[in-house]
Amino acid sequence: MAKKGTLIVISGFSGAGKGTVVKKLVEEYGYSLSISATTREPREGEVDGKDYFFKSVDEFRTLIDYNGFIEWAMYVDNYYGTPRAYVEKELAEGRNVILEIEVQGAMKVKEQYPDAVLVFLTTKNAQVLKERLEGRGTEDEATINKRMKRAAEEVKQMESYEYIVINDDLDVCVHTIHGILLAKRSELAESSEIIEEMKRGLNS
Amino acid sequence: MAKKGTLIVISGFSGAGKGTVVKKLVEEYGYSLSISATTREPREGEVDGKDYFFKSVDEFRTLIDYNGFIEWAMYVDNYYGTPRAYVEKELAEGRNVILEIEVQGAMKVKEQYPDAVLVFLTTKNAQVLKERLEGRGTEDEATINKRMKRAAEEVKQMESYEYIVINDDLDVCVHTIHGILLAKRSELAESSEIIEEMKRGLNS
Repeated sequence: MAKKGTLIVISGFSGAGKGTVVKKLVEEYGYSLSISATTREPREGEVDGKDYFFKSVDEFRTLIDYNGFIEWAMYVDNYYGTPRAYVEKELAEGRNVILEIEVQGAMKVKEQYPDAVLVFLTTKNAQVLKERLEGRGTEDEATINKRMKRAAEEVKQMESYEYIVINDDLDVCVHTIHGILLAKRSELAESSEIIEEMKRGLNS
Repeated sequence: MAKKGTLIVISGFSGAGKGTVVKKLVEEYGYSLSISATTREPREGEVDGKDYFFKSVDEFRTLIDYNGFIEWAMYVDNYYGTPRAYVEKELAEGRNVILEIEVQGAMKVKEQYPDAVLVFLTTKNAQVLKERLEGRGTEDEATINKRMKRAAEEVKQMESYEYIVINDDLDVCVHTIHGILLAKRSELAESSEIIEEMKRGLNS
């Protein structure tokens, strides 16, 4: 049987660059990306089943009723959720799965998957965060202000995360997150198999 | 003032490839290598002040008396020790310092530097370890047997380490050790500065 994969949860301020970081982790390190379901409108260029599973509010609520989500939450007036089946299948087959979700969701995941690694992504300061949101050019001023207010709330929850990674240099950031995974897999608690193998071999 | 560097301690079975791994960490990631002092005879090609500081037994004992070593120990009938001054200077200047030392020494380092990261390097099994020692071709059969016996002792102490890294693929091994350092620097406990920065910026 294959060793189970590791579940990595990436949260962080809107504008911290979660999407770009996740994309690079998938491309460079072969992480399996869990695609969220949402009731929000697609942004320009977003594709159903690739960026999100876009659902109606009714569909989303039905999935909630059938325990189809690991976690779900409402964020800026829309539902977001992580479909359960895909994550469980990928982990069982030994692949590392990456979830990009917000703070409350991350805590719900940790309750159900205590071995999950929780990473909070941030810019190096608030000014850079605001500039990135403005530079994105996809949202109006009211939405940006809403996101900055939300960030001021989320900052209180940074301390619930195991790792805080600054997305200043993208390569360093991605390398760090993959490093966290490699480190976790080398922790003493994960190493009983190799220790037993060496004990057996050296004392025979 | 610069942030202090991290101290990484690499131990592992003789033949696990510590030297090669350490060399790559220095070359690729700019780690500062602490050079050990020893009373053993130089192997062919080894240079004083580069591979080791080669000392007479009298010189070595004098340094012990003057608290000149972070740790020292006797191993296969020779003294080995880590000069204190260099390590403290490099850490204070913000560089990551790598020590390649044996098991007892690593424990002594951890007592004095609780933030040090302790990594134990191993082959994937005992057979590969023996083959590597034989392939090295620098030691006679008696020395190889002595090292294998020593390994059978050291295996009991693997569980004193925080991380067990298998040196099967050299690149993966080096990437993992650097990942452990990156992960450590992103741990919540190390992140109070960035959290305070974001709190200040987002709530102003």
